[in-house]
Amino acid sequence: SGCRPSGWHGAGRTASLGLMVDSDLLAVARGDAPADVVLTGGRVVNVFTAEIERVDVALWGTSIAGLGKGYRASRVHDLDGAYLIPGFIDAHVHIESSLVTPAEFARAVVPRGTTTVVSDPHEIANVHGTEGVRYMLEASEGLPLTVFVMASSCVPATPMSTAGAALEAEDLQAMARHPRVLGLAEVMNFPGAIHGDGAVLAKLEAFAGRPIDGHAPGVRGLALNAYVAAGPGSDHECTRPEEALEKLRRGLFVFLREATNARNLEALLPILRPANLGRVALCTDDRQPPDLLDSGGIDAMLRRILAAGLDPVDALRLATLNPAEYFGLRDRGAIAPGRVADLLVVDDLRSLRVREVWCAGRRVARDGAVVDWPEPEPPRLPSPSMNVSLGPDALVIPAEPRRARVIEVIEDQIVTGARVVEPRTQGGVVVSDPGADVLKIAVVERHRGSGRVGLGLVTGLGLRRGAMAGTVAHDHHNIIAVGVDDDSLRTAVTAVVDAGGGLAVAEGGEVRALLRLPVAGLMSDAPVETVRAGLDEVVQAARRLGSPLHDPFMALSFLGLEVIPTLKITDRGLVDVDAFRLVDLWV
Amino acid sequence: SGCRPSGWHGAGRTASLGLMVDSDLLAVARGDAPADVVLTGGRVVNVFTAEIERVDVALWGTSIAGLGKGYRASRVHDLDGAYLIPGFIDAHVHIESSLVTPAEFARAVVPRGTTTVVSDPHEIANVHGTEGVRYMLEASEGLPLTVFVMASSCVPATPMSTAGAALEAEDLQAMARHPRVLGLAEVMNFPGAIHGDGAVLAKLEAFAGRPIDGHAPGVRGLALNAYVAAGPGSDHECTRPEEALEKLRRGLFVFLREATNARNLEALLPILRPANLGRVALCTDDRQPPDLLDSGGIDAMLRRILAAGLDPVDALRLATLNPAEYFGLRDRGAIAPGRVADLLVVDDLRSLRVREVWCAGRRVARDGAVVDWPEPEPPRLPSPSMNVSLGPDALVIPAEPRRARVIEVIEDQIVTGARVVEPRTQGGVVVSDPGADVLKIAVVERHRGSGRVGLGLVTGLGLRRGAMAGTVAHDHHNIIAVGVDDDSLRTAVTAVVDAGGGLAVAEGGEVRALLRLPVAGLMSDAPVETVRAGLDEVVQAARRLGSPLHDPFMALSFLGLEVIPTLKITDRGLVDVDAFRLVDLWV
Repeated sequence: SGCRPSGWHGAGRTASLGLMVDSDLLAVARGDAPADVVLTGGRVVNVFTAEIERVDVALWGTSIAGLGKGYRASRVHDLDGAYLIPGFIDAHVHIESSLVTPAEFARAVVPRGTTTVVSDPHEIANVHGTEGVRYMLEASEGLPLTVFVMASSCVPATPMSTAGAALEAEDLQAMARHPRVLGLAEVMNFPGAIHGDGAVLAKLEAFAGRPIDGHAPGVRGLALNAYVAAGPGSDHECTRPEEALEKLRRGLFVFLREATNARNLEALLPILRPANLGRVALCTDDRQPPDLLDSGGIDAMLRRILAAGLDPVDALRLATLNPAEYFGLRDRGAIAPGRVADLLVVDDLRSLRVREVWCAGRRVARDGAVVDWPEPEPPRLPSPSMNVSLGPDALVIPAEPRRARVIEVIEDQIVTGARVVEPRTQGGVVVSDPGADVLKIAVVERHRGSGRVGLGLVTGLGLRRGAMAGTVAHDHHNIIAVGVDDDSLRTAVTAVVDAGGGLAVAEGGEVRALLRLPVAGLMSDAPVETVRAGLDEVVQAARRLGSPLHDPFMALSFLGLEVIPTLKITDRGLVDVDAFRLVDLWV
Repeated sequence: SGCRPSGWHGAGRTASLGLMVDSDLLAVARGDAPADVVLTGGRVVNVFTAEIERVDVALWGTSIAGLGKGYRASRVHDLDGAYLIPGFIDAHVHIESSLVTPAEFARAVVPRGTTTVVSDPHEIANVHGTEGVRYMLEASEGLPLTVFVMASSCVPATPMSTAGAALEAEDLQAMARHPRVLGLAEVMNFPGAIHGDGAVLAKLEAFAGRPIDGHAPGVRGLALNAYVAAGPGSDHECTRPEEALEKLRRGLFVFLREATNARNLEALLPILRPANLGRVALCTDDRQPPDLLDSGGIDAMLRRILAAGLDPVDALRLATLNPAEYFGLRDRGAIAPGRVADLLVVDDLRSLRVREVWCAGRRVARDGAVVDWPEPEPPRLPSPSMNVSLGPDALVIPAEPRRARVIEVIEDQIVTGARVVEPRTQGGVVVSDPGADVLKIAVVERHRGSGRVGLGLVTGLGLRRGAMAGTVAHDHHNIIAVGVDDDSLRTAVTAVVDAGGGLAVAEGGEVRALLRLPVAGLMSDAPVETVRAGLDEVVQAARRLGSPLHDPFMALSFLGLEVIPTLKITDRGLVDVDAFRLVDLWV
C-alpha cells in the first residue's frame, strides 16, 4: 500500500470543522470593538428561516461577527439593495477533471460564487497515491476557495484495472488526520460494499461516524438496503427521479450532478418536493474548462432550478446550508455569527449574477473577474508518471470467427451501452470499421511499464479517420486511445507519452493537436484560459476527424471507468460492469 | 479540578455515532440470509420524504436491515395496519430531575416511546464531579433506553455558588472520549461566553467541531451574535416566539421545552413554520415522576403539536430525525437500513398511543407496560454527600432599617421576579410574614462542611406555617429551605441531612413528610412508582401547610439557579442574575 505518509497531522480537524473561539471576534460581535468591514444596505438571505433580512453584516478577520444594527467598522461597504447570500458549496468534485491545478480551478469557479468544494482527489491518487493527495492539499492551501478533501475510497476503482497506486484503509486513516479531510469519498465499489468485501468494509469502518459518500448508479431495492447499511450517506449517480426518491427514502442525501459528461439535473428536478429539500445538494463532479468558463458550475445549476420555479431560498439551501450540514461543516453554509465570511453579492435571486465574491472576509472577485487575488507559492509538482512500453504488436487484435462485444457511447452520459457485432477483419486481424462506426479502442498501462494493453471495440465516437489518445482515463488514468488505423493510434499514444501526459489527435504519422497535461498526466500547469483554448483545439481536431460529439475526449475518458455500467475497458480488457467481471472481447 | 478519571476510553465514539459495518447484517439486508424479525403489514413513516410506505421492515440483531418485500425471518410479526415510527429522541434532559436512577427513568419513558435521550448529568456532577458523571454512564449501560451524555459545561454554574465539585476543560475532554459522550452540555454561563471568559472559552474550544448546547434565556441582538459566535449550536430557554425566531435566524437549533416547572411549548407553537421545521427539536429538560407517569414526556409534547394541526410527519421529525441530525447521530432518528431498531408501533398519528416499543431490535414494552425488560446489574452508588454544619445562629437575619430584596416565584416558570419590601422584624431579626407571603429562605452549603448559609426572602411559595427543605437545588444542590419559623426550618433541614438527602416538610419539631433521595441527594434508589407516591406525599404535606402551588418543591428547587433571571439565592447569598453578581439582601 505504499509508504506511510508523514505530515497528515495538520492543525487538527477542529480548525476547519468547528468554530475556533476568539475573544476579539466576540468583542466585535458584541459591538464593543470595531469590525474590519460592515456590509450595509443589503438584503441578507437567511437560509435558516427562509427570510430576507435588512440588516448590516459585520466582518472581522475571516469570520462573520454578527448581523444587526449598531456595528462600527474601519470600512463600511454599501450593498445598495443587493442581496447578500452565502458562498456556494460544491458537494462533490474531482478538481483534476478541470484539467488545471487547484489554484486555476479556484480562479475559474470563485468569481461565479463557489467558495467551498468538497473534492475527491481520486484521479491523481490513482496516479500518485498518497503523494498525489498531498499535492492537491498543498496546492489548495491559502486559496480563496476552501478545498475540503474526501479520502479516495476506491484507488484503484477495482482490481480489474491497473492504477499507479493503491490506497488501503490504513493509508486513508492517515490522510483523515489532515484538517481539511472530512471523510471517505464516493464508495464506487458498490458491489463490494453490498456484498461485504473485507477491504471495502475496512475502509467504511475506518470512517464510521464521519461523512461517507456513496456512488451507486441504478442500485435499488434490497441491494440498496445493503449499500445504505454498509455506511454511505449520499449518492450523486441518480439518473431518474424514481431512483433518487428511493435513495432519499432509504436515508441517502442526494447530490444532483451536472457534470460536463453526465448531466442529471434536468431529469431530477421532480424530486425537489418540499419534504425532501433538506436532503438534496448540488455537485459538478467533473467539469471541463469550457463549461466552467462559459456556463459556470453551481451557479448555472441554481439558475436552472430557479427557472423551474423553486423558491429562491430553498434553491440556495441546496448549495449552502444543506451540504454544510451533510458534511458537518458548522462553520459555513449560512450568514451567521462565527461562520466564515464567504459571501456573495447578487443583484437578484433569479439571474444570480454574482456582483461580488467575498472569501474569508476579503473581496476576491467583482463582476466575474478576480480582484485582490492571492498567489500562494505553488507546491512542488509530483514526479512525472509515464512509464510506457508499447511493443510492436501491442495494438493487434487477432480475428476470431465469432461476434465481438462493442462498447456503445451514449452522449452526455457516463453509462454506456453494449452491443454485439461481427467485426471487420483484414489479414487475420480485427480492424476499425469507420463506415459502421465500430472503432478499435486501446487502454495502454502507463504507470508500471507492464506493457499491458486492453483492446476492444467502440461505437459512438464517430471518427472517420485518424486517432485520439489521452492520459485522462477514469479512474486508472492509463492511456486510452481510439482510432481508425494502427499508425494513427500509435502516433497519438506516443504523442501523449512524450508530452508527459496530455490529450492528442493524430492522423497517420502526424500529430494534429496536443494538449499537454504534465501534472500527473491529468492537469496542465497553465492558466485555465490557455488550457481551455488547448482543449478546444484538440476537441476541434477530433471533430475534424469525424466525431459528432461535442466533446469526444470527455466521452473517451470515461470509457475506462469500470464501475459505471454497462461495458467498459481497462488495461486488463473489457469489463461487464453489471456482472462486475472481466469479459472476453469475443462472445 | 479533581483527580483525572480513568476509564473514559470506551469502545470508541464510532460505535455509537457511526454504523459499525457487519457483513452478516449486509447479508440480511440483501435478502441472502434470514432476518431475526420481519415486521409486516405496517404503515412505515418515512421521516426523510414525509411518506407512508407499506413495506416490510427486516430487523437483524440490534439494527434495521432493510425495508421492502421479500425478507425471510425466523419471526414474522404482523402490525395489522398500525403505523411504525422511529423511537423518540429527547434532545435535552437532566435525568436526575426525575428523582430516580437511569434504570427507573428508562422504565418510565420507554413505554411512552422515548428510546434515546441526550442527557446532561450536571446535577450529579455538581455533587460528585466526574465520579457522578461516571455513575450516570454506568447506570445507563445496557438499558433499552440509549442515554447519551453531554459533558456538563458549568459545574459549578457560576462562582457565585458552592458545588461539590468543579469540572474544568481538561476534565470534560477526558469524559469526551467515552463513546456515549457527544459534546458539551448547555453553556449556561452565557455572560461568560459572550464576554469571552477564559475558562468558558477553553471548554468551548475543547469541543469545537462537536455538538455544543446553548442556554441563553432572553439573549437577543448583538449579545446573541457573540453567544452564537462563541460556539453553542442550540438553545432550549426560549419563552417567546420572537426570541425563538431570532435564535433560529442566527443559526441556533431551537429545542422546545416542556419541563415540569418550565412549560414553553404552547407559547412557541407559532415558530413551527415550514421553513424552520428542520431546525427544531423537543426536550423535557426536567420532569418529575407524576408528569412522566401521567402525561408523559416527548409523546405528550407531540400530541399537543399534532392537536395544533402540524402535519404528523413534520411533527414526528421534531422528535426523531431533527435531533439525530443536530447531534450527528447517523445511526438513529429514522427507519432506514443500518440504523438501530428503535421503533414504535402506534395506532394512529393523532393520539400517538404507543402500542409497542422496540429497542435495539427487541420488543420491550406493550400497551404502556414493559415486557422482556432487562435488569442490568446496578452500579455502585456514589458515596453519600451530606457534609453539613449548621450553627445555632445560622438561620438568623439581623434586621436593618432598610428595605429588602424578595425573590418572586412565578408559577410554572423557572425565571423569577424581584421585589423590594419592608420586611417584618421581631426582636432585631427578620422573620417570615406569612400574611404577606414573604418567607425566609435559606441555602445551606452541604458539600464541604463550610457552615455557609445564604439567607433571603421569597414570595409566592405561600406557606402559612411550617417549613420545607430539599437537597435538590439547581444546580449546586445545596440544601434549600423555606419556612415560616426557624424551628420548622431547622427540623426540615435536619431531616434531609439525616436521610442522606431528600425532600422534607416539617412543622415545629415534627417531620410531616420525607422523601429520601440517597443517591447524591438527588435520586431515590426505589422504583419510580414508589418515588412518585413519596413525592406526592411531600408535595401534599407542603400544600397542607398552605402553598397554593401544584408543586412547591419543584418551584423551590429552582430558586437557587443563579443563571436564570431575575433574583436567585445560593449559599453565598442573593444573586442579581441580570447584573450577574451577588447582591445584598438590603437595598
